[in-house]
Amino acid sequence: MPMLTVRTAAEAIDFYRRAFGAREAAPRVTSPTGQIVAELELDGQRFFVVDENVAAFNNSPDTLKGTTVRLNLVVDDPDAVAERAVEAGATVVFPVSDQPYGMRQGRVADPYGHHWLIGKHL
Amino acid sequence: MPMLTVRTAAEAIDFYRRAFGAREAAPRVTSPTGQIVAELELDGQRFFVVDENVAAFNNSPDTLKGTTVRLNLVVDDPDAVAERAVEAGATVVFPVSDQPYGMRQGRVADPYGHHWLIGKHL
Repeated sequence: MPMLTVRTAAEAIDFYRRAFGAREAAPRVTSPTGQIVAELELDGQRFFVVDENVAAFNNSPDTLKGTTVRLNLVVDDPDAVAERAVEAGATVVFPVSDQPYGMRQGRVADPYGHHWLIGKHL
Repeated sequence: MPMLTVRTAAEAIDFYRRAFGAREAAPRVTSPTGQIVAELELDGQRFFVVDENVAAFNNSPDTLKGTTVRLNLVVDDPDAVAERAVEAGATVVFPVSDQPYGMRQGRVADPYGHHWLIGKHL
């Protein structure tokens, strides 16, 4: 399960709910050093959203000026999902379009710097 | 599904096979700009390993000097899994030990800069 580091987990959780329909799958935990650790569920897949803690090597994309792991969503209607994400505050990295590798796919960056591929197999 | 960016996907795929028993779940694809895109499977979960392409905002931990998303493995025997990863070339970030949040868990960094939490619920 991927664990996404962000500067403001509480805000990011709200964004993932509005943008993708994610729901919190378990009560939030606060680490001994004060960071929120939240477990979300999206279409049956789990992921975590965690506050940044640079001392523990948990760096946000804002701190590193980029991201090292992308999240790949396979959905029924990538155009609609990407549009909803953008309405919620994401920005388009690559617009949804038919790709040479047999997918209709695009990519958005969320307000916390994580990148989401949104596509379907053609 | 997480997509891990690395500088040398071919090497990293071999490492994930040796360290975690991952297997390639589909034939490797080479992007039009020359990057390997490989789909791996580990205990029923899929993830991708992709060559770095900074021009397309696919940055490796080596380039960003850190990582923004950790991978969380829940296994039967975290001590053994972490030991095998270290034998394959990973380095210990935090040793496997009983944690206050009800898990026995540790953390290793793989040779490509990605961080893996390895634990079980107590």
